[in-house]
Amino acid sequence: MSAFIGATPDWDEAKAVIFGAPCDSTTSFRPGTRFGPAAVRSEAFGIETYSPYQDCDLEDISFFDAGDLELPFGDVPRALETIESMAARIFDAGKMPILLGGEHLVTLGAVRAAARRYPDLRIIHFDAHADLREDYLGVKHSHACVMRRCHDILGDGRIWQFGIRSGTREEFAFMRAGHVVTEPFSVKTLPSLSFPGGAPVYLTVDLDVLDPSEFPGTGTQEAGGLRFAELLGALTEIFARFNVIAFDNVELAPALDPSGRSTALACKLLREEILAAFPN
Amino acid sequence: MSAFIGATPDWDEAKAVIFGAPCDSTTSFRPGTRFGPAAVRSEAFGIETYSPYQDCDLEDISFFDAGDLELPFGDVPRALETIESMAARIFDAGKMPILLGGEHLVTLGAVRAAARRYPDLRIIHFDAHADLREDYLGVKHSHACVMRRCHDILGDGRIWQFGIRSGTREEFAFMRAGHVVTEPFSVKTLPSLSFPGGAPVYLTVDLDVLDPSEFPGTGTQEAGGLRFAELLGALTEIFARFNVIAFDNVELAPALDPSGRSTALACKLLREEILAAFPN
Amino acid sequence: MSAFIGATPDWDEAKAVIFGAPCDSTTSFRPGTRFGPAAVRSEAFGIETYSPYQDCDLEDISFFDAGDLELPFGDVPRALETIESMAARIFDAGKMPILLGGEHLVTLGAVRAAARRYPDLRIIHFDAHADLREDYLGVKHSHACVMRRCHDILGDGRIWQFGIRSGTREEFAFMRAGHVVTEPFSVKTLPSLSFPGGAPVYLTVDLDVLDPSEFPGTGTQEAGGLRFAELLGALTEIFARFNVIAFDNVELAPALDPSGRSTALACKLLREEILAAFPN
Amino acid sequence: MSAFIGATPDWDEAKAVIFGAPCDSTTSFRPGTRFGPAAVRSEAFGIETYSPYQDCDLEDISFFDAGDLELPFGDVPRALETIESMAARIFDAGKMPILLGGEHLVTLGAVRAAARRYPDLRIIHFDAHADLREDYLGVKHSHACVMRRCHDILGDGRIWQFGIRSGTREEFAFMRAGHVVTEPFSVKTLPSLSFPGGAPVYLTVDLDVLDPSEFPGTGTQEAGGLRFAELLGALTEIFARFNVIAFDNVELAPALDPSGRSTALACKLLREEILAAFPN
Amino acid sequence: MSAFIGATPDWDEAKAVIFGAPCDSTTSFRPGTRFGPAAVRSEAFGIETYSPYQDCDLEDISFFDAGDLELPFGDVPRALETIESMAARIFDAGKMPILLGGEHLVTLGAVRAAARRYPDLRIIHFDAHADLREDYLGVKHSHACVMRRCHDILGDGRIWQFGIRSGTREEFAFMRAGHVVTEPFSVKTLPSLSFPGGAPVYLTVDLDVLDPSEFPGTGTQEAGGLRFAELLGALTEIFARFNVIAFDNVELAPALDPSGRSTALACKLLREEILAAFPN
Amino acid sequence: MSAFIGATPDWDEAKAVIFGAPCDSTTSFRPGTRFGPAAVRSEAFGIETYSPYQDCDLEDISFFDAGDLELPFGDVPRALETIESMAARIFDAGKMPILLGGEHLVTLGAVRAAARRYPDLRIIHFDAHADLREDYLGVKHSHACVMRRCHDILGDGRIWQFGIRSGTREEFAFMRAGHVVTEPFSVKTLPSLSFPGGAPVYLTVDLDVLDPSEFPGTGTQEAGGLRFAELLGALTEIFARFNVIAFDNVELAPALDPSGRSTALACKLLREEILAAFPN
Repeated sequence: MSAFIGATPDWDEAKAVIFGAPCDSTTSFRPGTRFGPAAVRSEAFGIETYSPYQDCDLEDISFFDAGDLELPFGDVPRALETIESMAARIFDAGKMPILLGGEHLVTLGAVRAAARRYPDLRIIHFDAHADLREDYLGVKHSHACVMRRCHDILGDGRIWQFGIRSGTREEFAFMRAGHVVTEPFSVKTLPSLSFPGGAPVYLTVDLDVLDPSEFPGTGTQEAGGLRFAELLGALTEIFARFNVIAFDNVELAPALDPSGRSTALACKLLREEILAAFPN
Repeated sequence: MSAFIGATPDWDEAKAVIFGAPCDSTTSFRPGTRFGPAAVRSEAFGIETYSPYQDCDLEDISFFDAGDLELPFGDVPRALETIESMAARIFDAGKMPILLGGEHLVTLGAVRAAARRYPDLRIIHFDAHADLREDYLGVKHSHACVMRRCHDILGDGRIWQFGIRSGTREEFAFMRAGHVVTEPFSVKTLPSLSFPGGAPVYLTVDLDVLDPSEFPGTGTQEAGGLRFAELLGALTEIFARFNVIAFDNVELAPALDPSGRSTALACKLLREEILAAFPN
Repeated sequence: MSAFIGATPDWDEAKAVIFGAPCDSTTSFRPGTRFGPAAVRSEAFGIETYSPYQDCDLEDISFFDAGDLELPFGDVPRALETIESMAARIFDAGKMPILLGGEHLVTLGAVRAAARRYPDLRIIHFDAHADLREDYLGVKHSHACVMRRCHDILGDGRIWQFGIRSGTREEFAFMRAGHVVTEPFSVKTLPSLSFPGGAPVYLTVDLDVLDPSEFPGTGTQEAGGLRFAELLGALTEIFARFNVIAFDNVELAPALDPSGRSTALACKLLREEILAAFPN
Repeated sequence: MSAFIGATPDWDEAKAVIFGAPCDSTTSFRPGTRFGPAAVRSEAFGIETYSPYQDCDLEDISFFDAGDLELPFGDVPRALETIESMAARIFDAGKMPILLGGEHLVTLGAVRAAARRYPDLRIIHFDAHADLREDYLGVKHSHACVMRRCHDILGDGRIWQFGIRSGTREEFAFMRAGHVVTEPFSVKTLPSLSFPGGAPVYLTVDLDVLDPSEFPGTGTQEAGGLRFAELLGALTEIFARFNVIAFDNVELAPALDPSGRSTALACKLLREEILAAFPN
Repeated sequence: MSAFIGATPDWDEAKAVIFGAPCDSTTSFRPGTRFGPAAVRSEAFGIETYSPYQDCDLEDISFFDAGDLELPFGDVPRALETIESMAARIFDAGKMPILLGGEHLVTLGAVRAAARRYPDLRIIHFDAHADLREDYLGVKHSHACVMRRCHDILGDGRIWQFGIRSGTREEFAFMRAGHVVTEPFSVKTLPSLSFPGGAPVYLTVDLDVLDPSEFPGTGTQEAGGLRFAELLGALTEIFARFNVIAFDNVELAPALDPSGRSTALACKLLREEILAAFPN
Repeated sequence: MSAFIGATPDWDEAKAVIFGAPCDSTTSFRPGTRFGPAAVRSEAFGIETYSPYQDCDLEDISFFDAGDLELPFGDVPRALETIESMAARIFDAGKMPILLGGEHLVTLGAVRAAARRYPDLRIIHFDAHADLREDYLGVKHSHACVMRRCHDILGDGRIWQFGIRSGTREEFAFMRAGHVVTEPFSVKTLPSLSFPGGAPVYLTVDLDVLDPSEFPGTGTQEAGGLRFAELLGALTEIFARFNVIAFDNVELAPALDPSGRSTALACKLLREEILAAFPN
């Protein structure tokens, strides 16, 4: 499997490590995110390493692409453990984990590793869906519950959500009760978001936060989403203002978008995130 | 066939009745709207009954889903009569008809029933196309003529059009002559629209008023359309300010959008319309 | 619109005239055959005028391509009259009509013209479906009834069907009662088919007689169909042994087969039919 | 959700019960079979209840369609238990279970119930793939291992496989060691297959045994498969000669075949199986 | 092949001549633009000749559609010469060339003809990509180098670029060195653009300047593009304020957008450009 | 880029070398074969290394996968030279070249190298199209002329063609004049084909020799082709009876077959060819 464009073949010198988690076992609607990481790698040759947005180039940054984890299809607990181990190994090496999903549940593996290392961890979460259910059809380890499981670990006041435009009445009641801080529909409140100085942030981007017109390649599409420029602006700001210690991009299902623009966007966004994470 | 999510199985208690008119006999370009109503029902399980936009839930509203009418393929007059009868039956029961197309011509059946019951009927019309031709290739009962046929019934000054961005020179001359009131391209003049207090309104939404990027699943796409948020805002305002006695959503052709986002949008829009029509 | 490859621009010298009937108003399942004739013309540039099967070339035969009839969408009786007039005009000029559908109902227009001119007309019919219903949802002029309407005109013992593999119990009872002669599933009995010498034959080919693997571009697919080589062999034999005075190919719906092989096959089949109809 | 065409709404009078198991959690390549049962039901309106192959009609047979089981996404053991319970409940009521997958692993749930009730159970298995691995990436409950798990239950000499054309060296060694009886590539040996009189047979049909040209709507396609007519002939013979006490059709992934012919074939095959299972 | 809607069949009276250059030999990613011009012609019947944006009608303007050039596949120099000759012939006849690509390299043929005729030629260029490479994999006549080749002809300060959002570090350095004037991402600086009065302008529009959500039918999609309304506004302004002596629309690859909205947009844009070029 | 399954990473020990030629510059209809080699590699993980057809396993054979050549888009002569050099280098190392197209023209590069090394070279050619034109639109180095160019090198009586079912009258006259030996439509004469003992054979397989139902993923589809089992049987026989010194598989265009079965078939065929070329 190709590495992402601009990656170094040298683990030791790398400041960050990309790894894919090709898992969609709990997907409740249209599956296919397991092919997301591979598509991002193989399509990346269609973009440049240089960003005119940030005027810098991937070739000036050392990051390693570890390929995809080999996850057992249908064994969710073991899949999460494998993801957690990999993230922990990357943290232990003093590098930044960059996780490519797969479905959103994979975030839980990486957050477990991050929370163990950084007890004061915060999460910034972009998504169309709240993902705050206590369970989904009786299953607690489901993509629809992933932020609730993160809340189980981190507790109140640690999770900030943006762009949410779908959820049950119970999930919105959970937000309103103050367990998490949610800006529905948009990212306007981001400039006013503040933390204790230097608190470590795990950034999780469910790409379906984007409008389905720009990102149709995902299983559960919700009209009324963010534009690419809005998301790019928000992410760039987060990397500039906060101490992001790991991040993920999840829920790209390439085959659901034969036009290929969703995968192309995901490639471009990943380039911009890496560049923003390691400014010159 | 499944009912739309949140529907009650009890006709008697329902305040509104959804029915589908799977007809595309006069479609002049790419057909397929006949599968629209069925797709809206079967895909609706992918959305929630709760709306974060209006903070209310379909489960608090009683509406009945009568399924699709059985329409004779290729016999347009009989199809229109069947639609008219169904709408009349719903009006007679003191309920609100909600018609799912099908091509736009189906609106004529429902408007006939509405106009007989409410002689002072107004129509508010969202569409990319004027639909004001006197005839189309010699056929008067065509989707391309449907608003002209409504004008035949209602006369001047009763029809308001929004979002129109395609038509013949003759159709735009017809508008300019004052027979109907048209805002091309957008919905900016909606706030200044006013009627005699409480005048009954039939609301017809040709979903191709949306931009093709957000709603590709329709037969005749016109660039430069409304965004979902604009349309949702306009519709919510109309339900709040006017006395809507029936409405329809037409021209979803699900197979023309394999990504499924057009159908998902149509499901979500219908949820919002029902919630707006029956505020708590 | 392009003419079919090898067509002459000169009506007078032509021995045959191709015309399209882009009509699918009564299609009961997935529409789209209206685009069939145009696709056959525009894709034909991908095939050669020379046939290695028959070792002859379209360039040695004079046929005219009259383009598509302009049919009123949604007005079935007028559409049938238009088709009938065109076929009659071609017969009157001493030429052979070649009709491209559109849905199978268009055959009725051409058969009317043929039966008026040739009272002892026979029909040879290839199809997956019997098309022998008395009516379909109350409509008598439907694609599902077209051979029954032809039987109304011609009476018993005039219609031979091949390849039929779908129908209602009533339709198969109608066959067994001897009104028409049907070989289900295959074409094995063709060699034993005989007529009074020189009786005029109208040949109608619903392309869904082919197996859906070879011809997916049609609205109602039935597994277990003929292979291209079988159909080609049967048609070649019919042109060689019988007095075919007109023929049609119907039910190509190009958009239902994005691979394009259905349209390519239809082009090739039409080439072979024309070559077989006018041997050197 | 619609019931399959011709189903009775009355459980008590039914001799057979259809139920869907919308599960694809262990699918290792392209998922999507979870939508198989729903597609079979909604597309069945495109076929007739009458079979010209067997000259009988679904309307003369009483079978009930219980809809889809609600299976927890990502919890394979619980999903299998739910399937097993449903099959057991149907057996207890003296009816024949008809299981629609979903991925092939769902067969294990039904076979467990069948083997408990019928200790001398045999399995006849149609498939492109041997499904005889001891484990797949360490997972024992995987679609790629399902027949091995059945062998764990039944032991040697109880499973007959047809059409197999893919597997590992180890799987083919397992066959050759005589644990199961396999005819690779075809069904020619079926006439010579014999059992102790009346031994109960569970029939499992992985639809990818068909050639991908006829059945592209499945996740792992293997060239060189059976034709529809071959499979239909084989299945009809099995129902006629053996004591089939339950059967399943699995691995239809409708979205992978936008032409729809795979789903149409699956509908038709199910009609023929039901008719063959309950001859007049 | 059909002509574009509203075209006159009379070369002599025409003020402008459309011609297609169905060439994609140097396309480096997903090819298919060779079918662009044909698609624009055949799909144009889906739009009206009247523009509500400009309140004028193609039927009031005389332009000729010369169809597609016959270009040798795989012989790039000869293809460019053929395009140059055709453009020169149109200039010689005192008419405006309107070139439809094909890939962007075709522009070079037309610019050569224009520069010979108008030594003080300017180029206004809309594109997602800078197209300023010195060579691409050693090839100088590549779509990725087309504006650099134009710069070779015209020299510094003659090319204005808008909407550029992708390129190599070297290309952006080339811009910053002042060889061309580039506004990345948008068209905001257009109002301040000024030339010596009446200087001749060649306008080249790579349609991938549009956002991929609105125009997915192109080979190399870049998120974050212009909206249709922005592009239309910019183009209308250019025709109003500058002396456009020729223009092209390139990089439509129709098959990459099965929804058809890219082709529909290209048809509509061409209508608006022609109307703007020849105001009443 | 991944290597083909079962490949060794060690050039030295390899008996054969796979290399891709991602070139489709002269494709005259629907391009896209440039992505063929990459698709074969990335999809091969969906098949097994073991063949039940030949009862042997790729893991027992040493072959190297050199990846794709970097070919200049739009510079055909240089592309052919690059292919020729690579083939010559593989011959020089005493290994067998296995070329993956790309369009059929790439064969010319490999045949040049083979003919220089083996002056008594024969070619066995499977194809739907004769590829014997003297030129195509004036271009001599075109996919439609590739076998004619090979004939230029080898002379009369050296090329055997199978499965041909399309060509111009001139091409079939060329065959009949005895320059090449052609069996149209099928492979029945293969058993009677004989050569001087041990004469070296270049085997070229244009995959469009297969029926489009089994292999839709190619640019120019011709109904009436070979079945997979026929082609596999013929190729196995050729490897067993003749001295094949190199071979190629060309004209897979993966994106034209979204079902993926064409790519899956190409993977499986390549596995079988390698196994047949190096029997244990």
